[in-house]
Amino acid sequence: MTGLVTFGETMLRLSPPRHERLETATSLAVHPGGAESNVAVAATRLGADATWLSKLPDSPLGRRVVADLNRYGLDVDVVWSDSGRQGTYYLELAGAPRETDVVYDRADAAVTSATADELATETIRDAELFLTSGITPALSSTLEETVGDLFEVAQEADVRTALDVNYRSKLWEPETARETLETYFPSIDVLVTPVRDAHTVLGEAGTADDVATALADRWGFDTVVITRGADGATAYHEGTTVDRPAFETETVAPVGTGDAFVGGFVASRLSGSDVGTALEYGAAVAALKRTIPGDVALVDREEVDRVVEGEHETISR
Amino acid sequence: MTGLVTFGETMLRLSPPRHERLETATSLAVHPGGAESNVAVAATRLGADATWLSKLPDSPLGRRVVADLNRYGLDVDVVWSDSGRQGTYYLELAGAPRETDVVYDRADAAVTSATADELATETIRDAELFLTSGITPALSSTLEETVGDLFEVAQEADVRTALDVNYRSKLWEPETARETLETYFPSIDVLVTPVRDAHTVLGEAGTADDVATALADRWGFDTVVITRGADGATAYHEGTTVDRPAFETETVAPVGTGDAFVGGFVASRLSGSDVGTALEYGAAVAALKRTIPGDVALVDREEVDRVVEGEHETISR
Amino acid sequence: MTGLVTFGETMLRLSPPRHERLETATSLAVHPGGAESNVAVAATRLGADATWLSKLPDSPLGRRVVADLNRYGLDVDVVWSDSGRQGTYYLELAGAPRETDVVYDRADAAVTSATADELATETIRDAELFLTSGITPALSSTLEETVGDLFEVAQEADVRTALDVNYRSKLWEPETARETLETYFPSIDVLVTPVRDAHTVLGEAGTADDVATALADRWGFDTVVITRGADGATAYHEGTTVDRPAFETETVAPVGTGDAFVGGFVASRLSGSDVGTALEYGAAVAALKRTIPGDVALVDREEVDRVVEGEHETISR
Amino acid sequence: MTGLVTFGETMLRLSPPRHERLETATSLAVHPGGAESNVAVAATRLGADATWLSKLPDSPLGRRVVADLNRYGLDVDVVWSDSGRQGTYYLELAGAPRETDVVYDRADAAVTSATADELATETIRDAELFLTSGITPALSSTLEETVGDLFEVAQEADVRTALDVNYRSKLWEPETARETLETYFPSIDVLVTPVRDAHTVLGEAGTADDVATALADRWGFDTVVITRGADGATAYHEGTTVDRPAFETETVAPVGTGDAFVGGFVASRLSGSDVGTALEYGAAVAALKRTIPGDVALVDREEVDRVVEGEHETISR
Amino acid sequence: MTGLVTFGETMLRLSPPRHERLETATSLAVHPGGAESNVAVAATRLGADATWLSKLPDSPLGRRVVADLNRYGLDVDVVWSDSGRQGTYYLELAGAPRETDVVYDRADAAVTSATADELATETIRDAELFLTSGITPALSSTLEETVGDLFEVAQEADVRTALDVNYRSKLWEPETARETLETYFPSIDVLVTPVRDAHTVLGEAGTADDVATALADRWGFDTVVITRGADGATAYHEGTTVDRPAFETETVAPVGTGDAFVGGFVASRLSGSDVGTALEYGAAVAALKRTIPGDVALVDREEVDRVVEGEHETISR
Amino acid sequence: MTGLVTFGETMLRLSPPRHERLETATSLAVHPGGAESNVAVAATRLGADATWLSKLPDSPLGRRVVADLNRYGLDVDVVWSDSGRQGTYYLELAGAPRETDVVYDRADAAVTSATADELATETIRDAELFLTSGITPALSSTLEETVGDLFEVAQEADVRTALDVNYRSKLWEPETARETLETYFPSIDVLVTPVRDAHTVLGEAGTADDVATALADRWGFDTVVITRGADGATAYHEGTTVDRPAFETETVAPVGTGDAFVGGFVASRLSGSDVGTALEYGAAVAALKRTIPGDVALVDREEVDRVVEGEHETISR
Repeated sequence: MTGLVTFGETMLRLSPPRHERLETATSLAVHPGGAESNVAVAATRLGADATWLSKLPDSPLGRRVVADLNRYGLDVDVVWSDSGRQGTYYLELAGAPRETDVVYDRADAAVTSATADELATETIRDAELFLTSGITPALSSTLEETVGDLFEVAQEADVRTALDVNYRSKLWEPETARETLETYFPSIDVLVTPVRDAHTVLGEAGTADDVATALADRWGFDTVVITRGADGATAYHEGTTVDRPAFETETVAPVGTGDAFVGGFVASRLSGSDVGTALEYGAAVAALKRTIPGDVALVDREEVDRVVEGEHETISR
Repeated sequence: MTGLVTFGETMLRLSPPRHERLETATSLAVHPGGAESNVAVAATRLGADATWLSKLPDSPLGRRVVADLNRYGLDVDVVWSDSGRQGTYYLELAGAPRETDVVYDRADAAVTSATADELATETIRDAELFLTSGITPALSSTLEETVGDLFEVAQEADVRTALDVNYRSKLWEPETARETLETYFPSIDVLVTPVRDAHTVLGEAGTADDVATALADRWGFDTVVITRGADGATAYHEGTTVDRPAFETETVAPVGTGDAFVGGFVASRLSGSDVGTALEYGAAVAALKRTIPGDVALVDREEVDRVVEGEHETISR
Repeated sequence: MTGLVTFGETMLRLSPPRHERLETATSLAVHPGGAESNVAVAATRLGADATWLSKLPDSPLGRRVVADLNRYGLDVDVVWSDSGRQGTYYLELAGAPRETDVVYDRADAAVTSATADELATETIRDAELFLTSGITPALSSTLEETVGDLFEVAQEADVRTALDVNYRSKLWEPETARETLETYFPSIDVLVTPVRDAHTVLGEAGTADDVATALADRWGFDTVVITRGADGATAYHEGTTVDRPAFETETVAPVGTGDAFVGGFVASRLSGSDVGTALEYGAAVAALKRTIPGDVALVDREEVDRVVEGEHETISR
Repeated sequence: MTGLVTFGETMLRLSPPRHERLETATSLAVHPGGAESNVAVAATRLGADATWLSKLPDSPLGRRVVADLNRYGLDVDVVWSDSGRQGTYYLELAGAPRETDVVYDRADAAVTSATADELATETIRDAELFLTSGITPALSSTLEETVGDLFEVAQEADVRTALDVNYRSKLWEPETARETLETYFPSIDVLVTPVRDAHTVLGEAGTADDVATALADRWGFDTVVITRGADGATAYHEGTTVDRPAFETETVAPVGTGDAFVGGFVASRLSGSDVGTALEYGAAVAALKRTIPGDVALVDREEVDRVVEGEHETISR
Repeated sequence: MTGLVTFGETMLRLSPPRHERLETATSLAVHPGGAESNVAVAATRLGADATWLSKLPDSPLGRRVVADLNRYGLDVDVVWSDSGRQGTYYLELAGAPRETDVVYDRADAAVTSATADELATETIRDAELFLTSGITPALSSTLEETVGDLFEVAQEADVRTALDVNYRSKLWEPETARETLETYFPSIDVLVTPVRDAHTVLGEAGTADDVATALADRWGFDTVVITRGADGATAYHEGTTVDRPAFETETVAPVGTGDAFVGGFVASRLSGSDVGTALEYGAAVAALKRTIPGDVALVDREEVDRVVEGEHETISR
Repeated sequence: MTGLVTFGETMLRLSPPRHERLETATSLAVHPGGAESNVAVAATRLGADATWLSKLPDSPLGRRVVADLNRYGLDVDVVWSDSGRQGTYYLELAGAPRETDVVYDRADAAVTSATADELATETIRDAELFLTSGITPALSSTLEETVGDLFEVAQEADVRTALDVNYRSKLWEPETARETLETYFPSIDVLVTPVRDAHTVLGEAGTADDVATALADRWGFDTVVITRGADGATAYHEGTTVDRPAFETETVAPVGTGDAFVGGFVASRLSGSDVGTALEYGAAVAALKRTIPGDVALVDREEVDRVVEGEHETISR
């Protein structure tokens, strides 16, 4: 039995050396990146048993994605496709006031044609938690339907479900996002959302506490997690909300922070921790992630524990 | 007035360090690569006045292509598009018996929607020679039509026309290629083709001499150039054929050799050389190109002259 | 008609990887760098039509400089010389308290023999603004005279003139600098100077406001811009002074900040903005420049606008 | 059920950029390298189901080895140890007449204390073929015994056994090697040895045919494979010998060629091929391996097939 | 006559690019690193005449260490050994909250068998000051004895002696460290210790002043220096204590800061400065060191002077 | 007493990655290179006691040259100068038919003002052999005189003298070279010259044997060595000539081959070998040098011995 199953797109991220511009860089670093595999790797690193489902082109590029994820210790169960592209994105990491820029090149990715029929739904049925993000249904109308189908599969099998809202303005409009995501809400047990998305996409006003409570009330979520970046995170669960601060961090690689948080939170919950502790694990994994190049939280359990417990030193020797 | 105008797609080429595999490479070098811009750069390097026409996405990736070509000294006149991708391709350079592998990721490139109406046809009308390759019409049905339109524009303006057959088996079948290209043949003055494509695509049997003569006879080409790789090249012109050998070369970067040859041949002809001399310049630029990383022949006139004249040394100091 | 024409030296900058020492670095990055081409590139990036004039050795090194500047989109009009070196400088970028160290190797550069007769003065006559910096006359007595001649050419053609004082203690003494620069002042419309140079070279005491006003009064400049680093900038124009703060920035590459400011200011003024807005554009380009490796402000217009308007985000996705 | 199980040491290989010297290189590339994991990866690549057994230190270095092997698609089943080092070796790749130099730093590796009791012998019992090399018993007296024990485990479970002689002069003397290896010979089904080792270590004279036949006769091996480098390979099986030539190859990375050959041979035999075909697959994988940086044959099945069938091209596009 | 002689181990440090993890890095930078050679290089850089004594394997790795130290201008006098390893360590430099991680691989280094008999004790007898650190006796029981012997050699020759406590928790327990080091204390003139080690290893409570005075009183040290990281340093000498603050610094490479401090302090004392000035030189070298990649303070005298005198600028041009 | 003393210029060589063009390379590797220090390093590597004399600018660049040479184990004795540049040269390594291109940037190097008075002539007086090359007098008229003075110093002290003709067409005309060098010939004991220079500069016709004998006869040289590249070398000594072939080699870095040969020859002679053996050592060092990046023969004695004795293997493990 698998603890966590996630479904979504993993792209090849192509990025110039830090600070350099896409216009002049002569080489690009290659990393795998995708919200749901990021979450699954982070959870795996904390000891969870996690599998990532997807559909990839049967090409050196698709195989590259799998090889990278295998390297991180993640189980993958993918459909190999003869059509469709390997999604890529270009990332130009910048210091303020220059914006870190993301150029998506993910149209017509193989995953956009993935249906519930061809995916390894038996893995979902056998899991404790099934998760995807709000990015997935934004990629194609097929995926919009597939996500709904997969949540249904999970529900029918009494598998808990989680959705990370993860709104991307380069993919769709806030209204469309809301409409689509709300069709899934009745099937969702755990909702995670940045407070900003809660405001602009989900239309909830007020503090993180207000938002969490309102969402839980309206949709009947078991748990709602509201992330507030450097200001910490808030969770609503069983009628009360808990807050935890973020850890201070020296940021090297901000992309993937949210996914790292979710992976830490989810793995902690799967291992039986209460919601407050899970927020701390989410925060610790997120803080560590920002120090690690790439989109993925290549942490190990011991260092996460030391951060949660405040016992990490500057140099270990 | 411009000497040479070419039209076609230029991709971003992404390649692992020489010998490494796409599966494991952690960085990819970025170079621009496209048959028609390759030809135009090579011609520019020999002193021709050349312009490349195309359609590119208005993104950091499209702007990157232009910046690179500007750097090589080429004039570009492109339509900026809000839709369509920047075509890319992945190149894994290998030594025998491993195959150098090309993975195209060029579907839905912005250029595939380019029409004659939006392109800078006035530049063509003002040129001495207009050239494209057999790759261009293989990219979309729109481009198939656009290529025909542009050849018509050239013909009507009494501008000479050239087509490099350049068959790509990953893009189309030989029969389709032949059918399409033959619709252009009546408008073509100069046909360039590898002897292999002449056999398998154009259906001509026999030696390079036979093929050149047969093609010229059948279609009324003014000039036919048959390239034979390391075995040299043959040209038919005004009733006779001339042969020239290839130069020995230490191959570092084989992609773009054919385009370098065409650029050298065309520039030499534009400067008034006879066909035999032009074959020598083609061969010299091609030989030098194979020593230069990337797809483009970054030669200078003096070194090409020295190769043609057999005066190049091992070290110049 | 060209908006901006600048004249000066562009060196090849050779720099170890950030933080490494010249003594032990095994590779050096190559970038073009020169105050006047830096200004011109920054202005081009904001949409100005700019040309850089100079004299370069006819060698792979000189041609390299032109290729790089072409890549950035700048028009260049250079005299190719058979004598004289390509100036270089070595840059060791350091964090405090270590000094970022500049080792000039620019003696006998080809440009040091450039005379007004051989330069493209017709381009100056046809411009809206001609600019050079106080570095140029410090390089040779020929250039001291040439700079005077070029300002005269501009004045006679009713072209506005600008001088950026840009004092370099490794090139000359403050007194010599002052004497020389003051011979140009009667021909200058726009004077730009760091407040420190105004104090130590031009002998003006007091605040930026005092200095700007005093200089304008004494020499009759139309506009005086006093830059104060992280403290912002002050401009005197038509009897009043305006101040604008600097933008906060994460500094990666401090060299060229002043030139970026000037390029932003000048491009903004050429496009019709008032002096206060131009100071904001100067500040925004300067802030962005500090995040970009190399000496040149490879910005684009949209990101500069977002900084000026305070609308830039951390990540754009 | 697993097809192939191998046991041995995998080191971290640290190598300067090709051609550079250890004395002056400022960076070292990191690759995993070990005869038995090299064999297992090569077999996996051809479609065999392979597992590598070993003992590694529970440190970032030991975990690194596993992550790399996972990336290549290999299953690993290792004992994590709190004592013992991670073996490393330094490789200086040189062109003739300079010797490619190997500096071992593998003393006291964790694996040197591995006993049959702690290793996953159930995996061996469940396999079709168990393989190790003559390097393993050279590493410690414990391992000398463990290798004997594992061969016994295999024999008792009716699992076929293979030994690749792989003599290393930096590890032991020829006489010691012979004495040790001969204690295993009665338990071995398939013996693989370079002809040179057959001469200098095993004391067999004559041609590859002579040697193969003599060894089979004396020890009752089912199959004997004699590799002769660029001269091909010879196999004795069921009373006859077959020869196959090597494929011509452009050598980039010679280390691991023999292991690639064995992996190809073994995978081919496991899939039911006859001995002659298996030699061809061995030769093809070996030839491809020499074009791939690192010690491991990162081939795919299709390209190996094309080499065996002589259908590989120079460029595939 | 040599000013300073140090004795100890120098390892090859292997480190991923800054921020990257050992688990995924594909290349490792190579630097020499060892407390006592770090001290000696720093002192050399300030003009001291320094020699480093050690024992190294007669291999490309051992020779590499010497070549690197020669490059930095240090005199070395080593015993070449046919047995024993070259110690290495892996350094993963991280930003908080991730710990910078040190993985030692220094067991059985050649130096661990070094005896006073084989080392160049005549160099010690001819020196002004002999120094080693508390790391050296932690490496082997032979070295524990050798350190005692060398201090005796120095004492007998009226050469001053210094010990830098430099406790390493990955090498030994605090109690063992204390017991061992205290056997040397009667022979020591100058004791240097981080305040933390004074507390946890030497068992001294209180402020730096308290600790320095107590240690001097108990053991009769001529000078005691207590380093307090970013909080500065304190020295006890001739009955009084002096404090000096640390300089602010932009940290790039924290490893070796303490050694840089000691090198600066010692060189300053050897050149005749008083203790307060020597603390300032220690602090300046330490601050500069943190801006320089590698473990060694590659400073020059002039820049150290400028930091001590507060005259350093941001950019020197 | 020193065995070998050499005098000449050492430049910083700046070279793009192999095969890349200066026009587009974004980084340049840094190596020291100069005929006379190359010779001295090669000799040092074979066990000779060698010192290099020169004059360098007191700058990070000059200090860099010394640090690099120290690293290779060479003793240097240089005059530090406040004026004059550090000579550099740019090297673009190419495969045929592209020429490996050398762009000198060595005008006004500090060494060009070096006089015998300021150089460490006592080191010459104390040596067994003093050597410079024909490059040195080509650099300035001061150096033309200095070289004569130094040969005189050597002669007066009964130190043997050697001159390597080493003609550089980018520095002077053949006639000027001949005139200048012939003024030194009466003071020279050992003359080394490529056969090509003997023909085109020294005006000697015929085979290497003819040339060597004629030169010895005319000028009274004790030894004449004629190098013939891949065809081997010939030496005249005491009335007879001996020939030795070159070793086959895989060329990675051809620059410095001649200097490596001279270093090997000279070191072998200094250690008492006969002329034939010395030619073999020269040939072996030269062959090894061509496999080593940079201009310097970083060989060790044992590997040279193995090449001379034909005992080198492909891989040593």
